[in-house]
Amino acid sequence: MCEKCGCGDVQHVSIEVHQSLLAENDRQAAHLRQHFEQDGVLAVNVMGSPGAGKTALLEAIALAVAGRLRLAAVSGDLATALDAERLERAGIASASISTGSGCHLDARMVHEALHDPRLGTAARSADVFFIENVGNLVCPAIYDLGQAVNVVVLSVTEGVDKPLKYPVMFRKADLVVLSKIDLLPYLPGVSLATLTDNVARVMPLAQVIALSAIGGAGVAEFAGWLDAQRAAARGGHMQ
Amino acid sequence: MCEKCGCGDVQHVSIEVHQSLLAENDRQAAHLRQHFEQDGVLAVNVMGSPGAGKTALLEAIALAVAGRLRLAAVSGDLATALDAERLERAGIASASISTGSGCHLDARMVHEALHDPRLGTAARSADVFFIENVGNLVCPAIYDLGQAVNVVVLSVTEGVDKPLKYPVMFRKADLVVLSKIDLLPYLPGVSLATLTDNVARVMPLAQVIALSAIGGAGVAEFAGWLDAQRAAARGGHMQ
Repeated sequence: MCEKCGCGDVQHVSIEVHQSLLAENDRQAAHLRQHFEQDGVLAVNVMGSPGAGKTALLEAIALAVAGRLRLAAVSGDLATALDAERLERAGIASASISTGSGCHLDARMVHEALHDPRLGTAARSADVFFIENVGNLVCPAIYDLGQAVNVVVLSVTEGVDKPLKYPVMFRKADLVVLSKIDLLPYLPGVSLATLTDNVARVMPLAQVIALSAIGGAGVAEFAGWLDAQRAAARGGHMQ
Repeated sequence: MCEKCGCGDVQHVSIEVHQSLLAENDRQAAHLRQHFEQDGVLAVNVMGSPGAGKTALLEAIALAVAGRLRLAAVSGDLATALDAERLERAGIASASISTGSGCHLDARMVHEALHDPRLGTAARSADVFFIENVGNLVCPAIYDLGQAVNVVVLSVTEGVDKPLKYPVMFRKADLVVLSKIDLLPYLPGVSLATLTDNVARVMPLAQVIALSAIGGAGVAEFAGWLDAQRAAARGGHMQ
């Protein structure tokens, strides 16, 4: 359409600044991780597209482990505290992080949220601390939040090709939860076999749980996975 | 959890660099817009979450306007050319833009794609040029691509609260397509009335089409909306 497109030096400056931001974030994340480990808290970074079912997953697990595990959470969104309110109603001590126009949580935001006395106290004495990230299958993947493990929630309604199209996120996953499986009968062309196969193509050590927060399928398996992660973390600390 | 969290000056530098990047993007977008207008092409930026049904919408519209409107497209994803291949099969001259780890398209990427002789020729003689953005309900909203209009695709499976939680995107929309409405009978707590009401709370001049790419509902209405936009653009150019 025209002769020339000059990208400008600003792109290169941008890369340098971005690397500085990531380095600063990593420093704060390491600090958070130290606290979580000292307090014996399993920190879980829960990521996925908008509407993948992250909050519904946490509501379902709260019901499943009620009276057995203490849970706390922060929940990130551009606006509203709707998710944190849902989590509170489900019995999870929660705080909301509003990012404004920000597309992901960073370690500083989580750190500041934990300075709130109520959440800080709950988180310190929790068995599991969930960090429900902003709904986004891209940006949250590259920001360390001090978590022990990454859970990526992928709704079967999103289609079978998402692991291939968003590999950066799935490469970082310790577990992929395939959610809303109760809707599978109504989704032509979507099968758990193809989804699992596509996850395995990009995820280093593919671990998948098929789950329905409404029907309850897979929720006990997810609780068992959390227990295994807690045991592994305790083993790691004793070394 | 600790005494101090130092955010560092790098954040302020970052804001400045980001503003420079946006200014450079705006310059390139203005250049693209000039070309689109000169060529009488309606450029449509199609945004939405991963799996919202952006590609399925374009496939459905290609079928509906076949023989009447000439269509071309670029399709952005982190990896794979799966969407562009689907669009080609649907009769839309298409090229793929792989962003690597990038969470949105920018004007430079679209510009470069249009320098490809095959796509460039098809786009110049098209009635409508679709820019299918990376699946992301946050970042694409702030990057101008030279488009005449923004279409945000929101699947009813994502839940009713998304317009409130991701207002930045919906504020930029000229049209919201509520997709996958064939799944509504299986989604407890999701109604078109609530979704439309929540869109209206954040969208300046709310315009909503409820659509099923599979069932065909709403597709003719979307074609009519495109015709109206083309007529409005022609009117604008004559002024």
